[in-house]
Amino acid sequence: MSKLKRTCTCGQLRLKDVSSTIVLMGWVDSVRDHGGVIFIDLRDRDGITQVVFNPDAANKSYELAHQLRSEYVIGIRGKVAARPAGTINPDLATGEIEVIADELEIFNKSETPPFEIIDNSNVSLELRLKHRYLDLRRPEMQKHLVFRHKVCQVMREYFDGLGFIDIETPVLTKSTPEGARDYLVPSRVNQGKVYALPQSPQLFKQVLMVAGYDRYFQIVRCFRDEDLRAQRQPEFTQIDMEMSFVDESDIMQIIEGLIAAIFEKVVGKTINTPFPRLSYRESMVYYGCDAPDLRFDMKIQDVSYIVKESNFKVFLDAIKSGGQVRAINATGCGNYSRKEIDELTEFVGQFGAKGLAWFKVEETGLVSSITKFFPPEILQKIQQHMNAKTGDLLLFVADKEKVVSQSLAHLRVHLGHKNNLIDPVEFNFVWIVDFPLFEYSEDAKRYVALHHPFTSPRQEDLPLLEEKPLEARARAYDLVLNGVELGGGSIRIHSPEIQKRVFRLLGINDDEAYQKFGFLLDALKYGAPPHGGIALGVDRMIALLLHLDDIREVIAFPKTQKATCPMTEAPSEVDPQQLRELGIRLG
Amino acid sequence: MSKLKRTCTCGQLRLKDVSSTIVLMGWVDSVRDHGGVIFIDLRDRDGITQVVFNPDAANKSYELAHQLRSEYVIGIRGKVAARPAGTINPDLATGEIEVIADELEIFNKSETPPFEIIDNSNVSLELRLKHRYLDLRRPEMQKHLVFRHKVCQVMREYFDGLGFIDIETPVLTKSTPEGARDYLVPSRVNQGKVYALPQSPQLFKQVLMVAGYDRYFQIVRCFRDEDLRAQRQPEFTQIDMEMSFVDESDIMQIIEGLIAAIFEKVVGKTINTPFPRLSYRESMVYYGCDAPDLRFDMKIQDVSYIVKESNFKVFLDAIKSGGQVRAINATGCGNYSRKEIDELTEFVGQFGAKGLAWFKVEETGLVSSITKFFPPEILQKIQQHMNAKTGDLLLFVADKEKVVSQSLAHLRVHLGHKNNLIDPVEFNFVWIVDFPLFEYSEDAKRYVALHHPFTSPRQEDLPLLEEKPLEARARAYDLVLNGVELGGGSIRIHSPEIQKRVFRLLGINDDEAYQKFGFLLDALKYGAPPHGGIALGVDRMIALLLHLDDIREVIAFPKTQKATCPMTEAPSEVDPQQLRELGIRLG
Repeated sequence: MSKLKRTCTCGQLRLKDVSSTIVLMGWVDSVRDHGGVIFIDLRDRDGITQVVFNPDAANKSYELAHQLRSEYVIGIRGKVAARPAGTINPDLATGEIEVIADELEIFNKSETPPFEIIDNSNVSLELRLKHRYLDLRRPEMQKHLVFRHKVCQVMREYFDGLGFIDIETPVLTKSTPEGARDYLVPSRVNQGKVYALPQSPQLFKQVLMVAGYDRYFQIVRCFRDEDLRAQRQPEFTQIDMEMSFVDESDIMQIIEGLIAAIFEKVVGKTINTPFPRLSYRESMVYYGCDAPDLRFDMKIQDVSYIVKESNFKVFLDAIKSGGQVRAINATGCGNYSRKEIDELTEFVGQFGAKGLAWFKVEETGLVSSITKFFPPEILQKIQQHMNAKTGDLLLFVADKEKVVSQSLAHLRVHLGHKNNLIDPVEFNFVWIVDFPLFEYSEDAKRYVALHHPFTSPRQEDLPLLEEKPLEARARAYDLVLNGVELGGGSIRIHSPEIQKRVFRLLGINDDEAYQKFGFLLDALKYGAPPHGGIALGVDRMIALLLHLDDIREVIAFPKTQKATCPMTEAPSEVDPQQLRELGIRLG
Repeated sequence: MSKLKRTCTCGQLRLKDVSSTIVLMGWVDSVRDHGGVIFIDLRDRDGITQVVFNPDAANKSYELAHQLRSEYVIGIRGKVAARPAGTINPDLATGEIEVIADELEIFNKSETPPFEIIDNSNVSLELRLKHRYLDLRRPEMQKHLVFRHKVCQVMREYFDGLGFIDIETPVLTKSTPEGARDYLVPSRVNQGKVYALPQSPQLFKQVLMVAGYDRYFQIVRCFRDEDLRAQRQPEFTQIDMEMSFVDESDIMQIIEGLIAAIFEKVVGKTINTPFPRLSYRESMVYYGCDAPDLRFDMKIQDVSYIVKESNFKVFLDAIKSGGQVRAINATGCGNYSRKEIDELTEFVGQFGAKGLAWFKVEETGLVSSITKFFPPEILQKIQQHMNAKTGDLLLFVADKEKVVSQSLAHLRVHLGHKNNLIDPVEFNFVWIVDFPLFEYSEDAKRYVALHHPFTSPRQEDLPLLEEKPLEARARAYDLVLNGVELGGGSIRIHSPEIQKRVFRLLGINDDEAYQKFGFLLDALKYGAPPHGGIALGVDRMIALLLHLDDIREVIAFPKTQKATCPMTEAPSEVDPQQLRELGIRLG
């Protein structure tokens, strides 16, 4: 046990504290031996304070201080002094003072770390994750995790204040794969059977509404065994909520209030609410995707109806085979070189586009190698439709709808970045609404739910369910921030009959529905209230609020893209005895 | 979408609201048709309001109201009216008013529930769990979960206010079984390897201290694959915390403040702090266990040194073979019948006691069938030592220390309940301190950690580690409430050398230590601060605060003692394709 008792942190001392005797504890950030006097920067979560070891003030501590090296853990007692003129450090909150130490205790030594504990270091993610105990010591990582804590705390206070109840739902639950793969947990007590880790608490929160809890929320871990991309983790965190006796606008209003509270209390900015709403159809037409980045305009335009009057075979063939021709106006990009345009062509190639047609807009009109295939009045119509002015560049993709949408959606964002059209500190929220209930899966050869099978169709679209299922609209909504989907929700089905109809349309017959979701169907029979909710990805939200691309920068112990943890070396091999007890064999 | 928009809940309306037009939504709790007027009790999470359907006021709604049955979900619009004199219900918060409905909307019907939605019903737990969506509708269960929410919210605000940071630790992690069995999760991406679900975030929170987070907390799900008892669940929730640069008393003080805040803000009582501290040794000697119920006295007394002078062979044999004779004074129980004493004998038999010797205390002294084996001065010494008065009953167990302790510990609590010595609404907290670091396991034929292998020995006991390991004391502390251990913690080892010494004493050689806990040993090399913490069981704490015996009363979706969920039917069989993808075979 230490003789010293900490009295303050390394970020607290100011000029007003001069002459107080204080005790600090922390890590040696740096040591400077100025011949006869030793200076150290002492660091803790809260900041850095300069500590001075002076042989005149305390010879024993001065002698001991010679042992100090970076990342040693120490405690010091000393007197706060104003820094001599000319040595004040304006970059440091404590830069006007220093502490003249009279007592030093070394709690622990440190070997030389495998990388420097500084921000913006060029260390590989693998090495950072292996030594996460050092990586997390960097001020930047500490800032991220403290920020995350504050956001979560604000979210909890917000929901609590509105009468929402935080209810924990199981982690060991039943496997009902729909969409992604489940992580499975073999049961030892019930051999041959397995639990699954939840992809979301969807069914449990619906059950809670049936049970009359009215307003539920939870910051909850969810699991998906997917092949990983940078924005995905095997386990991730959602802010999940559900309400009874509400419609879409009630949920959206609550979430807008939540975001506003986070901005006010943590980000320190004001965000305007309500957020704009954009229909799924409009979003797909103008932005080619359902998570548009609206920080800049550059809408996609359908010019099929114009160019079908041209003689350009590529366009005509695309239209003839059921496709379309759409374009964007890269305003002010008429000066792009051939090489730049080739690069854009290569870029859209990643999304299946077989080419990228273009016109430069000059004083005389549209200019391109393909101009000859277009009668003048068609060129004029295109220019007019695209609102194109001298100096602009028009870019066209002709293909199946999906290829055109994806190519131009990505091209649009690419150009937005390339031309600095995006304000990097802007936060642009938009609701996407009026989703279709189903889409047709070519792989599965059946309809699949665009959101999930518990999403309510619109009342007025009920007659369409069996007749024109693709036209039935869902009571669903997604929240998009800067072109990234934060999450989505819906008003749920509360009628057991409609739920069964939807299951049937999804090719889930009554037996299978009962086997998978029997308890939900049972629950709906005993007085289910109208209800709806939403879930937002917390990792992603925090990363976006901090302007970070990789969610691993806001997760204390994330996994690699191979779903491993380099620090603990999970997953790992286990004692065969453990497997025998579980009655499982691997490989 | 409903035409109606809810304006208030079923628990809010009072006399001051008379004449307002309001909209309520909820469940039909009961229907009474009083010939010409229909009364319903409408229920939501917040309470019950009486609604009146009157053909004169609104004939269409009155006609529709004939369809209403229990648990139908409805919305009503109406005018608040004072109840006529003589019909006021003082048991109901809204009992002075009723609502005269002019609009009724039936959102959903309900089949007749398999059991009545009332408190204290005699329904089996299995049936309650199967239809948990109905069971959770009972006001009692709603009260429990709302209470739980409030306690968790207070805990979070408390820790946040003290600068603790809520940091999420992984659920998919590495298997390091120590104590209980791990739940395992086979990896699809890394076949042949498995994740484990954490038994606690112990190592992660220590890593966070090494990383300089200073104060960490988390309300966190933990997992243990054990054979279940009523107080155990495969997944359970802990309030987990860790601090740097502290000693035992700092942690205890923070936790006392936490409990005081919960009592003040949720329980509505004042609790005195600091809590008393009792050494492990004293607790074992006087209460026979390390989680004593101190709501009543009745200490266990060691009388070996007195009775060894008697001629009673049972006692002499026990002492001779290294055992002991201990007793409790069941004050005022001198009138127990032979049958009652036989029942107590049978009771201690469960814990291995081969008999229960007794003396009744009469005016003339100690009276029993075994009195003849005791010289008068020994009887007198016993009476004196036991502070026994006329009318008392002395009860003795002679055996090995473990059997005596367990038998008398349970007998003591049994008598406490039987004789109403326990105030059922008292909350008695005590810290148990000065635990030994190790105990010797006869099964494993080695020393095992009494808490866990990361617990720090006392500085002054370091020299005992190798010489007299059983005498080394740990810097550990348990919090006990009403005879139930809420949880425990310790100051941890922060020196890699001491950590290795402890591993070696536990029979974990350096290679094995590195394989299992390499990242902790690595972390300790790079400047680990002195640190410590604690984890308390949330489910158990909430149950005790509500005076409930079974933690399943405070968990929304608990498992049965066979670790199953009757509602979802988890664990379940899965599609063989899922198992093939994981590369596992069951059974």
